[in-house]
Amino acid sequence: MRPIAPPRVIALAAALACGLPATATAADTPYRSPQQILDASPASAWRTLDPASTLYLELDAGRVVIELAPGFAPEHVANIRTLAGEGFWNGTSIYRSQDNFVVQFGDADADDAAKAKDLGSAKRQLPAEFERSAAGLAFDRLPDVDGWAPEVGFADGFPAGRDPATGKAWLAHCYGTLGAGRNEAADSSIGAELYVVTGQSPRQLDRNITTVGRVVQGMELLSTIRRGPEPMGFYADAALRTPIRAIRLASEVPATERTPLELLRTDTPTFDAIVEARRNRRDSFYKRPAGHIDLCNVPLPVRAPKR
Amino acid sequence: MRPIAPPRVIALAAALACGLPATATAADTPYRSPQQILDASPASAWRTLDPASTLYLELDAGRVVIELAPGFAPEHVANIRTLAGEGFWNGTSIYRSQDNFVVQFGDADADDAAKAKDLGSAKRQLPAEFERSAAGLAFDRLPDVDGWAPEVGFADGFPAGRDPATGKAWLAHCYGTLGAGRNEAADSSIGAELYVVTGQSPRQLDRNITTVGRVVQGMELLSTIRRGPEPMGFYADAALRTPIRAIRLASEVPATERTPLELLRTDTPTFDAIVEARRNRRDSFYKRPAGHIDLCNVPLPVRAPKR
Repeated sequence: MRPIAPPRVIALAAALACGLPATATAADTPYRSPQQILDASPASAWRTLDPASTLYLELDAGRVVIELAPGFAPEHVANIRTLAGEGFWNGTSIYRSQDNFVVQFGDADADDAAKAKDLGSAKRQLPAEFERSAAGLAFDRLPDVDGWAPEVGFADGFPAGRDPATGKAWLAHCYGTLGAGRNEAADSSIGAELYVVTGQSPRQLDRNITTVGRVVQGMELLSTIRRGPEPMGFYADAALRTPIRAIRLASEVPATERTPLELLRTDTPTFDAIVEARRNRRDSFYKRPAGHIDLCNVPLPVRAPKR
Repeated sequence: MRPIAPPRVIALAAALACGLPATATAADTPYRSPQQILDASPASAWRTLDPASTLYLELDAGRVVIELAPGFAPEHVANIRTLAGEGFWNGTSIYRSQDNFVVQFGDADADDAAKAKDLGSAKRQLPAEFERSAAGLAFDRLPDVDGWAPEVGFADGFPAGRDPATGKAWLAHCYGTLGAGRNEAADSSIGAELYVVTGQSPRQLDRNITTVGRVVQGMELLSTIRRGPEPMGFYADAALRTPIRAIRLASEVPATERTPLELLRTDTPTFDAIVEARRNRRDSFYKRPAGHIDLCNVPLPVRAPKR
């Protein structure tokens, strides 16, 4: 059993042997693994989820925890709160699983007026929220080049792009990103039909769809769902779909039934150190540090709170 | 049911409305979807697999078809042919599934001298084959920027990187890439323990591990395997592992039991057109063509032969 990429620690020998440029930090500081950096992190480097912006997607296999992004899609998030509060998704399904792309869920009959579920008091029409003003938005920028956006980094803890020329920012489609499915019209999404990225980051969707959040725990419950046999991963046979017991806002779940989580803040030295430790891996396994990291390869650590 | 990214076709209105640069090709030619491009492709744009470089990984759920890369890892591929020919993997297992990373398979007891399977006439030691000379290697280069390598493109049909400064080329870690697991020493892989990428392209592994091929059909059988409960996705409980019925070379399987496949050649105008149609999607769904594509987002079409 030959593990790839074991988490061990060594000095700088491997990095230096490759002749790669060593930053002052790298040269002056012994290499610490991401886990060592996390273990040494101060409590202030962590944040908790806002229960009013946290969704629990309850499956037979367990709970998927989602953080919503009201800073990027306020109208969609408001509608999603209404839909969750009124139990819209309870008894619906994951009706699409396309390999190396997305799972999609909600009302499988949404496009059939005769069968579609009642949307209750949710709005039937919303503006497209593909991007927002970057003004006033704290943006923890990565120095790394990106082919899809002029600048990439993290905003409100989400992977994001930014364009100084337009003054806009937007959420990026990475593994775990939650988006609002739409038809052809840009403003045809209302947040009732949702998808989560389960494949190689489909960044071509950035600024083409309203993105509304990110899975922070439970991705493995979505990524392993049997792929749909129909084109684009749909299931014509309803029996193959994955039942959704409920989707609830954490704020509407009794405190004792909530999932306590802490997320590493992206505006901290701890986070910067994690990113650098992944950009240039100098443990004994890696012979050639990459000197680069892609936005969607950056880990966003989550942990259970310490007691 | 609101599908994202339906494959429909329109003219250039959407692209032009965004003010994106239109190439001569884009301006002069109506947009064709990837499927339309494939449907119009000449037979000469396709190639078949060499049975002596094709592995069938046989699972209870079906067959995974793998193309080996003797042009990049000749010593490892030779050892893999020996191991397959002697039935080394028959009765072994997929003993690791780590979410958003890899599945790994072979002999779960390889590191336990008392239990390890006999390697038969396979070699016990091989050189690391992390990269090869780029001299004489046909390289279908992408114009798109890449953060991990000076140049990226396709060689022998595989996603690859190239460095003009060193004159080297190597296989890239994309979804479906097959690599040879190793211990800490660079030359500790022999091709008996293998992994397949099932998550966001871990390009930091490029030139750190010997890559030996790529899954060309059946990824959905690997990507949906239940993630292992132990760290790094291992299963301590052997009952949770996925049994491997056999791994065989196609050349050692009766012709009537082989899986006939055709792969789009990457050195053809058809392939260039597919890449451009994905780099700048101008169907009615996309409002903003990306103007870029990442190496690991490029589709590598496979089809059953026409009769």
